[in-house]
Amino acid sequence: MKTILITGFEPFGDDAVNPSWEAALRVDGERMGDATIVARRLPCVVGTVQAALIAAIEETNPDVVIGVGLAAGRADISIERIAINIVDARIPDNAGHQPIDEPVIEEGPAAYFSALPIKAIARDLREAGIPASISQTAGTYVCNAMFYALRHYIATARPALRGGFVHVPLSTEMAARYPGQPTLPLDTLAAALRVMAATVATASGDIKLGAGTIA
Amino acid sequence: MKTILITGFEPFGDDAVNPSWEAALRVDGERMGDATIVARRLPCVVGTVQAALIAAIEETNPDVVIGVGLAAGRADISIERIAINIVDARIPDNAGHQPIDEPVIEEGPAAYFSALPIKAIARDLREAGIPASISQTAGTYVCNAMFYALRHYIATARPALRGGFVHVPLSTEMAARYPGQPTLPLDTLAAALRVMAATVATASGDIKLGAGTIA
Amino acid sequence: MKTILITGFEPFGDDAVNPSWEAALRVDGERMGDATIVARRLPCVVGTVQAALIAAIEETNPDVVIGVGLAAGRADISIERIAINIVDARIPDNAGHQPIDEPVIEEGPAAYFSALPIKAIARDLREAGIPASISQTAGTYVCNAMFYALRHYIATARPALRGGFVHVPLSTEMAARYPGQPTLPLDTLAAALRVMAATVATASGDIKLGAGTIA
Amino acid sequence: MKTILITGFEPFGDDAVNPSWEAALRVDGERMGDATIVARRLPCVVGTVQAALIAAIEETNPDVVIGVGLAAGRADISIERIAINIVDARIPDNAGHQPIDEPVIEEGPAAYFSALPIKAIARDLREAGIPASISQTAGTYVCNAMFYALRHYIATARPALRGGFVHVPLSTEMAARYPGQPTLPLDTLAAALRVMAATVATASGDIKLGAGTIA
Repeated sequence: MKTILITGFEPFGDDAVNPSWEAALRVDGERMGDATIVARRLPCVVGTVQAALIAAIEETNPDVVIGVGLAAGRADISIERIAINIVDARIPDNAGHQPIDEPVIEEGPAAYFSALPIKAIARDLREAGIPASISQTAGTYVCNAMFYALRHYIATARPALRGGFVHVPLSTEMAARYPGQPTLPLDTLAAALRVMAATVATASGDIKLGAGTIA
Repeated sequence: MKTILITGFEPFGDDAVNPSWEAALRVDGERMGDATIVARRLPCVVGTVQAALIAAIEETNPDVVIGVGLAAGRADISIERIAINIVDARIPDNAGHQPIDEPVIEEGPAAYFSALPIKAIARDLREAGIPASISQTAGTYVCNAMFYALRHYIATARPALRGGFVHVPLSTEMAARYPGQPTLPLDTLAAALRVMAATVATASGDIKLGAGTIA
Repeated sequence: MKTILITGFEPFGDDAVNPSWEAALRVDGERMGDATIVARRLPCVVGTVQAALIAAIEETNPDVVIGVGLAAGRADISIERIAINIVDARIPDNAGHQPIDEPVIEEGPAAYFSALPIKAIARDLREAGIPASISQTAGTYVCNAMFYALRHYIATARPALRGGFVHVPLSTEMAARYPGQPTLPLDTLAAALRVMAATVATASGDIKLGAGTIA
Repeated sequence: MKTILITGFEPFGDDAVNPSWEAALRVDGERMGDATIVARRLPCVVGTVQAALIAAIEETNPDVVIGVGLAAGRADISIERIAINIVDARIPDNAGHQPIDEPVIEEGPAAYFSALPIKAIARDLREAGIPASISQTAGTYVCNAMFYALRHYIATARPALRGGFVHVPLSTEMAARYPGQPTLPLDTLAAALRVMAATVATASGDIKLGAGTIA
């Protein structure tokens, strides 16, 4: 039996909810073939997200970690290609800190590519009727910091673990606060997590699928 | 027993489906309080849409008409405020015609405001958790032509009839063909039509609710 | 000798400048063939803009009026097709008033089309290398109110006068306050006003040029 | 006397011009304090851009290299933070090749941060009235490949060289082919290159300036 850890984030900024956690909670405990999903919530705090992530990994002993975060303004499930070693916070985090141009991990390399089959995930989401794309940037805030910390942990401490990160849009349920912004219902976001869990539970490598950007 | 006629459009351009009709079909025959919804599909043809609309009205004898069309790129249910007396087609219609700067109806006035309680509809959609806004333009294509023809028919032939128009986003089910564009699932679009039907079945006037644009 | 009155607006909202007026001021007094440009600044106040406009017309006795306003977020010179008889203010005007769903002019018709050759203007701007498009909505704020008042005045009091409205983007000079928004330099905005003045000084009618929107 | 090499690209896709090269050519040979700008044009070809870049560096022996490329859809000068070791081409390059998920340089690290003072450049551009922002992704096409190759060359062969990359918007002069897209005039783009050249000619380090993105 495999374990797939899906992490969401607590709310941040002015929001009372975070669809990354709401969607993760909906699939917590579900079975996908021979895999079980466990969901854990992470703090939106640069200084503690890494320790909270590692604690969740040590507690649940997963085979795969799918980090999930909110990207207001994006219209689809965006599967992140790369985590970069920088924090440049546009707003203070939930502990009130706003680091500018500090590394996620001192002495870490500039970046890590995702250790998930990102193109296979994109294909499977689209085949399930869920909008998906590859993203070339996870930002420079807590989401990217968590993604980088996860990949650094895999690279330096637990090489058999696989893991990566996806951003989800605002939920349709939050739309009243974000006029004109694209949204997807929580039902769709939860369905997307199920598809991703099925893909990572079975994929043995990635596929070739064009998904680049000119700039 | 009241009758609410909801019209959708056949597909146009390169699309094989039109979510305006797919959503309308889902609610065809449903009851909302003492009202029944009937759905009819209209041609995406400037030269015949008016006659098809009037035929549908004469056949179903509705109390209210809600025209529905697709607006790719918009993120929410956009309730149209005004229909204008112009056709300026960006692409040929389904009969291959592409009028430029021709009136919808010769001798008609420049525009008609919606004869639906647009602000009450926006409020009720939002209270139901469905993203909604007021739009100041229904475009210059078949949607606007149908909306204008409907309002002109009300003004000149059937003053007791109420009617207006809403645009819906691309459906999530179509998203693979529209990377990066906002979408909403057909379930959400159908739910929106139910909310609107309930509002127009009972509303006795509109409300004051700020929903303007600076430009 | 013809006179072309170009009006700009005073700043509104949080801005210290308004590029519509800055651009108009740059071309004030210039000659285009046998026409002279005169520029006047209008208040961003729903309740007084109409009287200020009429006073400016009576003072300068123009052959053509080109109203100019700011549309933050638009990328090009957008030539407005239609003025509608509604004020629905998203923010208070400079007198602190915020009307919702009130007519610009009681008893006025729903809308007026521009009395300028909008397609010829679009063509001439593009030929001059200046981005331009036709817009189907001038919003529901002071710009639209001025445009409607101008057209109503032409229709009811001064039928030989021609007039219409264009929106300009944010100026590049203002960009620091609007990260990520499209802009054009004031030089380009002033050049656009010169092209428009030349077009309206000589045009004897409009041309056919597709410039519609599907929605 | 210092030398600042500014590279632009030849046209690609359906365009007859590339504003990155047109702007670079305008400042070719200009002096900024004790520095001289030299401009060179690079091929929009994944397989040859690296060799062409190194040849240009060996020929001109610069102290600083500023790579410039076109990013249609962006509204300002976007100063790239990081180059990543991937090519995922959305369209074929000018040699007809379209690599998918291939490294820029086999055995190279996942990414390199810019070796230019990106925040000081952003500050100086803004102080000059030119819109500027920090970008977290240079895409996955030839621009990113050139940027990565430049940084790898600095890291492995010429550590005293400094260098990085900026994307420019579509030029206003190209706007007719890109309706609705943000643009800046070539004059503004050339002015931006002058400001950047002055900054890199004198800067001795970067500054702290918040410029992050949440996602």
